[in-house]
Amino acid sequence: MNPATPFTSESDNISVLLQAFERGGSFFLMGHIDPDGDCLGALAGLSNLLAGAGGDNEIIVYEEIPKKFELAFSGLKTGVSLYDEDIPLEDCDALIALDCSDIDRLKPARDRLERIREQSGRPQLINIDHHEDNSHFGNINLVVPSAAATGEIILDLAEKAGLEIDFSAARALALAILADTGFFRYSNTSRRVIEKVLRLMDEGVDLYEINRSLYASHRPGVIQLLGRALTSLRTAAGGKIAYLKLRNIDYQLTGTGPEDREGFVNYARDIDGVEVGLIFSEEEEGIKVSFRSNEYLRVNDIAGKFGGGGHPRAAGCLLDCDLDKAVETIIAEVEKHV
Amino acid sequence: MNPATPFTSESDNISVLLQAFERGGSFFLMGHIDPDGDCLGALAGLSNLLAGAGGDNEIIVYEEIPKKFELAFSGLKTGVSLYDEDIPLEDCDALIALDCSDIDRLKPARDRLERIREQSGRPQLINIDHHEDNSHFGNINLVVPSAAATGEIILDLAEKAGLEIDFSAARALALAILADTGFFRYSNTSRRVIEKVLRLMDEGVDLYEINRSLYASHRPGVIQLLGRALTSLRTAAGGKIAYLKLRNIDYQLTGTGPEDREGFVNYARDIDGVEVGLIFSEEEEGIKVSFRSNEYLRVNDIAGKFGGGGHPRAAGCLLDCDLDKAVETIIAEVEKHV
Repeated sequence: MNPATPFTSESDNISVLLQAFERGGSFFLMGHIDPDGDCLGALAGLSNLLAGAGGDNEIIVYEEIPKKFELAFSGLKTGVSLYDEDIPLEDCDALIALDCSDIDRLKPARDRLERIREQSGRPQLINIDHHEDNSHFGNINLVVPSAAATGEIILDLAEKAGLEIDFSAARALALAILADTGFFRYSNTSRRVIEKVLRLMDEGVDLYEINRSLYASHRPGVIQLLGRALTSLRTAAGGKIAYLKLRNIDYQLTGTGPEDREGFVNYARDIDGVEVGLIFSEEEEGIKVSFRSNEYLRVNDIAGKFGGGGHPRAAGCLLDCDLDKAVETIIAEVEKHV
Repeated sequence: MNPATPFTSESDNISVLLQAFERGGSFFLMGHIDPDGDCLGALAGLSNLLAGAGGDNEIIVYEEIPKKFELAFSGLKTGVSLYDEDIPLEDCDALIALDCSDIDRLKPARDRLERIREQSGRPQLINIDHHEDNSHFGNINLVVPSAAATGEIILDLAEKAGLEIDFSAARALALAILADTGFFRYSNTSRRVIEKVLRLMDEGVDLYEINRSLYASHRPGVIQLLGRALTSLRTAAGGKIAYLKLRNIDYQLTGTGPEDREGFVNYARDIDGVEVGLIFSEEEEGIKVSFRSNEYLRVNDIAGKFGGGGHPRAAGCLLDCDLDKAVETIIAEVEKHV
């Protein structure tokens, strides 16, 4: 692989990337912190594809894989390691970052990785992502905002590279796509992406199995937590804003944690007449705010004002204040734009 | 149309039905009480198809169409009437019942309809449905339990009959199919049914629009009601049963009604390790119980013991007692089978 080359088009990136895959070598695969189904499904899918093609690779995660995403790792041909300082990041041909809009999203490893790269220029960084605001931090950047999921980009790559898509890879990639399209319910669902999932079904992928894994493996405490969040519902701006709140005590009393509130914010967004749905969550690092919008508001711009980011219709930020103050600050800002 | 003929196979029924459609004539279209998305989407879809083919038809409903299903009726070429005693049921060539497992499900009109039919033998009854336990109450019965939705049967019929499937019909049928497959998430989702929806997308159907209509048009009170239901969650049989309760006061305090609790029961079913999820709802007619199962329990058999019915994985019944007694009775029965 060449050192940091200034690529002029995505197609250049794709051909260099395909060459890298063909050449094989050893790869570390990493996703972002608080990984979602697309991130983990893309990791497992790509890992299986590279292993099938004879390459050497290992997935590095920062925390245990949430139960609902474990299905993507079933039948995995390679290893998954929890990140620690002893992982020899320098000992690979390239580190592939999946679904990360910025090198910051490799946070637990970022500082060390940057230090190592400054000293030796290695490992090379391959950045594969579908976030519009991706900072192109890699030596190779394959950023496809038109893709519904990073898993979709991996599938396209595999087909271009002629890699064999076996059942485990197909299931992991289907899980990635279904997670990031909300099982075809979000506005990023194109005819094209449904057809791709149909192709994965040809490999034996069972949508009901993926559905059960993604959406039907809640603990009772999580349902209780959702109940608490929903009863906190308030609206603002004449009903154009709806928001939910979760306090530390809600997590404690239900035996849950912030990782269990994924998707809750959609309930606020999915109210008639609402443009922006939000959830405010009291967590160790501060007040986490998730934004979802329906039609026109670019919530990544608003989250960006508070040091956050994301997609135009799904974004987040972190505030260092108490929950009520966070609600007041953010709602006042959102009200200006709806 | 011939008088009640003993049909020997579904294909006989289909050809008689297609002849009826080709001959045109006047039809009343009726669904079941408490209509769901499949019922209403199939009604609107068939109505548009028959109107497009030059037939005369009218949809009869028993109550106002819930807002989330209105999209199916957008662009409707014919009329929708609220049932009353003055609707001239006798003045049509055939009454087509859609998504009704039994003539009882035509309840508000049933007694009068049976009386009229006893006297004159008219109108003929055409029964189109996908419920396994359908009682074949029609003169023509097209019962296809392998279909994911009644909307799917209508689509197949339209293609067999060579009827033109315009945008409004396509959208209504897609809504029917998506409602009854939970947007491809339920176990009845086959590759075949996804391909059919892709064909409907060729007519310009927008899945996101249907998603917004079905799932994203809640009133804030409905979300509050869901919150109340979810915080009522209890489990039994070592976690194989999970159930929710809604009392009259929950509806009152949130400004909602029983029609707003559709889908709530799935939250109980979708808990890890649960085989049967239930919701008990205190309503005017008594305690309504909805059952959902995951893998093996035929909940229509259990609901049947209490005078109810439905599908093996989704059924319901009505109890004439107080809520706590209903919970006790039903849970004791379900516990025997999980």
